[in-house]
Amino acid sequence: MSAAADETQQSTADCMASMGRAARYATGALAGADAATRNRIIRRTAELIRERREQILEDNAADKAQAQASGRRGAMLDRLSLDEARIDAMAAGLDAVAMLDDPLGQIDKRWERPNGLCIERITVPLGVIGIVYESRPNVTVDAGVLCVKSGNAVILRGGSECVRSNRQLHTCLADALEQNGLPRTAVQFVPTQDREAVGLLLAGLNGNVDVLVPRGGRSLVERVHNDARVPVIGHLDGICHVYLHGDCSTKMAIDIAVNAKMRRTGICGAAETVLVDSACAERVLPALGKALEAAGCSVRGDTTTQRLVSSASTATEQDWTTEYLDAIVAIRVVEDFAAAVSHIATYGSGHTDAIVTNDQTAADAFLRQVDSAIVLHNASTQFADGGEFGMGAEIGIATGRIHARGPVGANELTSYKYCVRGSGQTRPN
Amino acid sequence: MSAAADETQQSTADCMASMGRAARYATGALAGADAATRNRIIRRTAELIRERREQILEDNAADKAQAQASGRRGAMLDRLSLDEARIDAMAAGLDAVAMLDDPLGQIDKRWERPNGLCIERITVPLGVIGIVYESRPNVTVDAGVLCVKSGNAVILRGGSECVRSNRQLHTCLADALEQNGLPRTAVQFVPTQDREAVGLLLAGLNGNVDVLVPRGGRSLVERVHNDARVPVIGHLDGICHVYLHGDCSTKMAIDIAVNAKMRRTGICGAAETVLVDSACAERVLPALGKALEAAGCSVRGDTTTQRLVSSASTATEQDWTTEYLDAIVAIRVVEDFAAAVSHIATYGSGHTDAIVTNDQTAADAFLRQVDSAIVLHNASTQFADGGEFGMGAEIGIATGRIHARGPVGANELTSYKYCVRGSGQTRPN
Repeated sequence: MSAAADETQQSTADCMASMGRAARYATGALAGADAATRNRIIRRTAELIRERREQILEDNAADKAQAQASGRRGAMLDRLSLDEARIDAMAAGLDAVAMLDDPLGQIDKRWERPNGLCIERITVPLGVIGIVYESRPNVTVDAGVLCVKSGNAVILRGGSECVRSNRQLHTCLADALEQNGLPRTAVQFVPTQDREAVGLLLAGLNGNVDVLVPRGGRSLVERVHNDARVPVIGHLDGICHVYLHGDCSTKMAIDIAVNAKMRRTGICGAAETVLVDSACAERVLPALGKALEAAGCSVRGDTTTQRLVSSASTATEQDWTTEYLDAIVAIRVVEDFAAAVSHIATYGSGHTDAIVTNDQTAADAFLRQVDSAIVLHNASTQFADGGEFGMGAEIGIATGRIHARGPVGANELTSYKYCVRGSGQTRPN
Repeated sequence: MSAAADETQQSTADCMASMGRAARYATGALAGADAATRNRIIRRTAELIRERREQILEDNAADKAQAQASGRRGAMLDRLSLDEARIDAMAAGLDAVAMLDDPLGQIDKRWERPNGLCIERITVPLGVIGIVYESRPNVTVDAGVLCVKSGNAVILRGGSECVRSNRQLHTCLADALEQNGLPRTAVQFVPTQDREAVGLLLAGLNGNVDVLVPRGGRSLVERVHNDARVPVIGHLDGICHVYLHGDCSTKMAIDIAVNAKMRRTGICGAAETVLVDSACAERVLPALGKALEAAGCSVRGDTTTQRLVSSASTATEQDWTTEYLDAIVAIRVVEDFAAAVSHIATYGSGHTDAIVTNDQTAADAFLRQVDSAIVLHNASTQFADGGEFGMGAEIGIATGRIHARGPVGANELTSYKYCVRGSGQTRPN
C-alpha cells in the first residue's frame, strides 16, 4: 500500500470512528428532547427544504447530469430525480411525520405484582441507526426525520450517484437540529464515497451503531446482510404473490392482480407471481391475460397458463424466484389451496402475499398459514407500505423476524425499559 | 490436519448443519400446534422429570464427580448440582409455564384505514433459537420449554461439566414432544462437546438459526457476542447500582442495599456498587457498613466511605466496573443526584439500577434518566428476574436494545405478522 493510500484509509477510519462517537454522544441530547422539540425540528426541516428548493434542484441537476454521463437511463435515472412536485411531496411528508403521536415515553404495558411492585414498560429510543442507501434522495430526509421523531441518532450513507442532492437535504436537517438547540451530529451524513466507510459502518463503529437499515438494490442489501456485525432491519427480496382462489370473483381477481403487479413495478410490494387455482383458471385466466396485456405486462406461464393466455411465454423454475421489478409477471396454475400455500413457502421471500377469495375459511387459513410479514385478503400487495399502514412514513420493510417485521416506522425504531415502583420491597430468599 | 481430525471436523459440521435443517423443518409443526398441545408437552415434560428423578440424580452425581475431579468447588459445583428439591422446583416451574397465557396468535394491535382495510398485528414464533449455556442444568428445561411455549424450535448447547444431566433432561422434553405428535427435533441437544460445534451455531447454521441466547460466565457470553453472525439476546455484565438518595429513609436504604447485594451474590441482578448521596452519608453509611458486615460482606470504598465504615478497604477505579458476583461491595459517596446518574452512565452495564428515596421528583427523574433495561424506585435490584416480573420463567435478561430488553420470557420469544383484510381494495396511483 502506498503512503498516500494508507493516509486516505487512515483518515476514513478516523472519520468514521469519530462519527460513531459523535452519534453516541448525541443520543443523550435526543433522548432528553421532548416531543414538541423533536416535532419542531421536523417541521423546520420541511420549511428549509421549501426555502432551499432552487439550490436543491440545482444540486440534483448536477447529480443527474453525472449519472447520465455515466450511462444511467430510464427508471434508474428517474429514481434519483427531484422536481418541484417531488420536493413538495417530500416536505409534506415531513409535516405528516411531525403530526404523528410521540413514539417515546409510551407505557405499552403496566401491571402490579402480588408483592405490590408496580411495573411499567415504557418505550425509549433504540440508540444509533446506520442507514446505507442508494439512488432516491428522499431517503435522506425520510430516514433522518423518522430517526429524530423516535429520538435516535443516525448516520446516513447515501450512494455516489446522488451525493450533491443528499448533502443539500442533509444540511436542511442539520440546520433544523441546530436551530432548535440539538447537536448537528444527531443526524450525520458520511462525507466520503470511499467504500471502506461502508465496511466500517457495517462493522458497527466500535459498538456505536445499534442497528443497520439498508435501502437499495439487491447487491447493496446483500452486502449489508452478509457483512454486518450488528442487527440488520430490512429485506433482500420482495417475491410477492397474489393467489386467485377457486372462489374468487373474476372482476376483483383481475383488478387486484393487475394493480398488485402494475401500479408500480419497481417497489418491493409489487407482485411478481400470480397463482391461479385450477378451479377458476378457465374462468379467470383468459380475461386476466388480456387485462395484463392491456396494461403493458408480459406474461410468463406454465403449460395451462400458456394454453389460456395466448401471449404467454414459458415460465421456467427460475421465474418463481425472480423479482422482476418490471412489467413482467409469472403465472402458475396450482392444483388447490395447499399447492398455493406450498408454492409460496418454497419460492416466496416472506414479504407480502395476498389471497383473493369470497371463501372466509380459505382466507383465514391463508392469513394463518402463509408465514410472511404481510398477508392480505382481497387487497393489493401494493399496500405493503408504511404510509398506507398509517405510519406516516417508513424507513423500510423488514422480512427478518427479530425486532421489527413489515413496515418500519417511528414506533418500530424504539426499544423499551422497565420502570418498577416499590415501597421498600426486598426479595425473600 | 490429520485425516482423523479432518473426519471429526467434517462430521461435526455435517451434524450441526443437519440439526439446523431439522430445526427449521420442525418450526412448521410447532407453528401449527395449538396452545393446548404445546401446554400438554410442557406438563408431560414435568411429569417425565418427576418419573425419572432417580436416573437424573444418578447422571447428575456422575457429572458432579467429574467436575470435582477436575477441581471444581463451592459455587461452581453448587450451580451444576441437582437434588430432590431442585428437581421438584424445576418440574413445578414447567407447570407454571404451562399455565401462562398463550404468547402466540395474540392480536396486539388492530386498526382500520380510511379506505376500509382492517389491519391486525398478530404474534407468531421467532423461528429457531440457539442457546449456548454452561453449568446450571435447569437451563435445559427452562429454555427448552419456553421455546415450546412460544412455538420456536431450539438447539441447546450445554457445557461439558453437565452433559449427562442435560442429556437426561433433554430426553424428557424430546419424549414429551414425540408422545404428543410433534417432532423430537423441535428441541435438539448438541451431542458433541467439540468447540467447533459452538462456532457453527454462532455462524447461524446456514441461515437456520434466527437468534442466539448465551447463558453463563463472562468468557462464554463474550465469545457469543463477538463471534455471532445472527442477533444475540443477552447481557455481558450486570453492574447493578443502588443509589441512596439524600431523602431516603435509613431503614429502607439499609434493607434494600443489603438485600440487593447479599440475597444471592451470584446472580446478574445482584448489586455491585452502592452510591450514597453526600446529603445522607453521615446518617446512613455507618449503619449500612455494620449491616453489610453482619451479613458477611466486605466493603471497598472511597475516602469518605472509609472514614465512616471502619472496616472498608480502598476502592480503586477498577472496582466501579467489576461484577464481583461475590460478597464484596463497592461504595462511593456522590456529591448529588446528577453525580449518581453520571456514575451509573459511566460505569454501569445498562442492566438494573435502583434509587431509594422518599422524594417522588428525584425518583421520577432517576427512572427517566438512567438508561438501563430495568430501573427501580424503593425496591431491590434482585427483582430483576422474569419470574419476579410474573413471566413464569425467563430465558435470560437482555441489555441489548434490539427486539427484547430486560427479562426475556415466552412473550419476548415471538415476532409478529400483519394480517390485512379488504373487500377488493387496490392502491390508487
